[in-house]
Amino acid sequence: LEKRMIELAKDASSRTRDGVPVDLLANIERGDEAEKALELGADGVGLFRSEYLFMNAGRLPSEEEQFDAFKLAVEKMEGRPVTIRTLDLGGDKVMDSTDMPMYRESNPFLGYRAIRFCLDHEKLFLEQLRAILRASSFGKARIMYPMISGALELSRSNEMLEKAKQELRDAGVAFDEEIEAGAMIEIPSAAVAADTLLEGSSFFSVGTNDLIQYLLAVDRLNDRVAHLYEPTHPAVVRTLKMIIDAAKSGNIGVSICGEVAGDPVMVPLLIGLGVQQLSMSPSLLPNVKYVVQNMDMTEAQDIAQMALETTDGSLILERLLDFYTSKMDELY
Amino acid sequence: LEKRMIELAKDASSRTRDGVPVDLLANIERGDEAEKALELGADGVGLFRSEYLFMNAGRLPSEEEQFDAFKLAVEKMEGRPVTIRTLDLGGDKVMDSTDMPMYRESNPFLGYRAIRFCLDHEKLFLEQLRAILRASSFGKARIMYPMISGALELSRSNEMLEKAKQELRDAGVAFDEEIEAGAMIEIPSAAVAADTLLEGSSFFSVGTNDLIQYLLAVDRLNDRVAHLYEPTHPAVVRTLKMIIDAAKSGNIGVSICGEVAGDPVMVPLLIGLGVQQLSMSPSLLPNVKYVVQNMDMTEAQDIAQMALETTDGSLILERLLDFYTSKMDELY
Ligand SMILES: [Mg+2]
Ligand SMILES: [Mg+2]
Repeated sequence: LEKRMIELAKDASSRTRDGVPVDLLANIERGDEAEKALELGADGVGLFRSEYLFMNAGRLPSEEEQFDAFKLAVEKMEGRPVTIRTLDLGGDKVMDSTDMPMYRESNPFLGYRAIRFCLDHEKLFLEQLRAILRASSFGKARIMYPMISGALELSRSNEMLEKAKQELRDAGVAFDEEIEAGAMIEIPSAAVAADTLLEGSSFFSVGTNDLIQYLLAVDRLNDRVAHLYEPTHPAVVRTLKMIIDAAKSGNIGVSICGEVAGDPVMVPLLIGLGVQQLSMSPSLLPNVKYVVQNMDMTEAQDIAQMALETTDGSLILERLLDFYTSKMDELY
Repeated sequence: LEKRMIELAKDASSRTRDGVPVDLLANIERGDEAEKALELGADGVGLFRSEYLFMNAGRLPSEEEQFDAFKLAVEKMEGRPVTIRTLDLGGDKVMDSTDMPMYRESNPFLGYRAIRFCLDHEKLFLEQLRAILRASSFGKARIMYPMISGALELSRSNEMLEKAKQELRDAGVAFDEEIEAGAMIEIPSAAVAADTLLEGSSFFSVGTNDLIQYLLAVDRLNDRVAHLYEPTHPAVVRTLKMIIDAAKSGNIGVSICGEVAGDPVMVPLLIGLGVQQLSMSPSLLPNVKYVVQNMDMTEAQDIAQMALETTDGSLILERLLDFYTSKMDELY
């Protein structure tokens, strides 16, 4: 069955049966994973987790090492977008380097992580931004900032990006002057005030894993409360709608790079809400592509409308499961 | 100056200069604190933190001990409302009892706490609910459930309350059949989907300390990120508005019991947004009362309107500081 789906999905373009294009992108951690993603039909990379270069090295990677990794992905993708997330350390992702001690925190998920850490470590951040910028001259790179909570952090991040650009200009090093940068929307405040992030974002990328965790105040790695982590909670659906509405008002795109984006059951809801790009683990691409190719946008919009009006998340999930089952039945 | 404020505020009723009543309530932890609260002009108790009976005892308090504490507060308040929060253990509030081991968690603020804990410990929860119900026949008690994330938890809580009532009825024990119960709104999902909590809530009580923490993904006890904890963040203002709008649509009241409720600088914003009840540490009552008595509702509404339209939280804070300063100047 899976083989059949891969065959069906691989070469055809990712658009709904009624012709609405949906970009299906890959989440990767190393430059060389871009190749496999491409084989599985990826339209680009929606999330390059740059922190894995840091977590596995036992030391801080040099600008050169980062550049090599980003360049490899950008080249393999042959002009398709490669969205690189700047260093997202902290939370449950701790660096094992002696160069840069991490801190013990009572609530690391509500702590010193991601952009909060980077804005405090200018040298490290500039090195990474230069590495991304340099890679951008070999294809299409994009930059996204994780854990933006408000407009001030975004503008400070963009100031650092501008500084990195200027350094490269001064040194005569090539980069894509048109490179896009966007805010990740994964903190509730960023969602509720997404319009305040339009200035300074060329796109929004929604990190649903964290967003749902914070919306519901649930650490899903904690067994005692994991049952409360509910991607179809009405508040989650409405919050996604807020983000998408803000993006539309600013005429920018929205991608999703949490686990729901690779869940073929959830995908019709996301597309129906107006998301144009989904990023997922490469192995999930064929199944999601199959669902996209075999549904109509109008069906997805019906589901989204129902989800926005329903006050019970379990009914939303039921509707999605029914829809998915009906689509899979057609495969047999 | 403080003395003068206490004199000015103590006896007069808490309403704005143009006659809009605002209930100023006290946060207490022990029954006997109700007396001091009353002396400082409290219109009732907005938050009785029941967990302190558990945290200081070194063991689980009996139903009788809880009843005594609640009865004392209810009697002292002479018919004014006493809002008792059911057990809010977990997070940074850990019980030192050997009867009930607490768990070590990676992110306790996103963990097994408050209503999550109580719904799993039926006997403990029923004991507390019976203690509150029994106290309700000696005055006016209200019940509020902490850390409600959605409608299911609220209905399960109310089912437990109904069960406790039935047990008392069966035993012929008196309680207030009209006792009100409400959801605390302190998790973003509860705010965004507040309308789904109207069924089952006689009032909303907004716990802004937690709400702001989750909205901004900031543990404010963590020095490295505490600067990001911003009560005037546009997302906070908008989220309060969502809660108040939902409450209005359901014709129920909204009280606030986080630190902002006792901050005379923040109070005009809260009142302007439509909050009718503020609950705070008793010592803060006179200063807040002074501000309430010396402002017009129309001024507060202007501030709220500005705050809802502004995309920069620091401008909101500036406006609030200016307003507060102008009111305090009149005191000299
Ligand atoms: Mg994240
Ligand atoms: Mg709380």
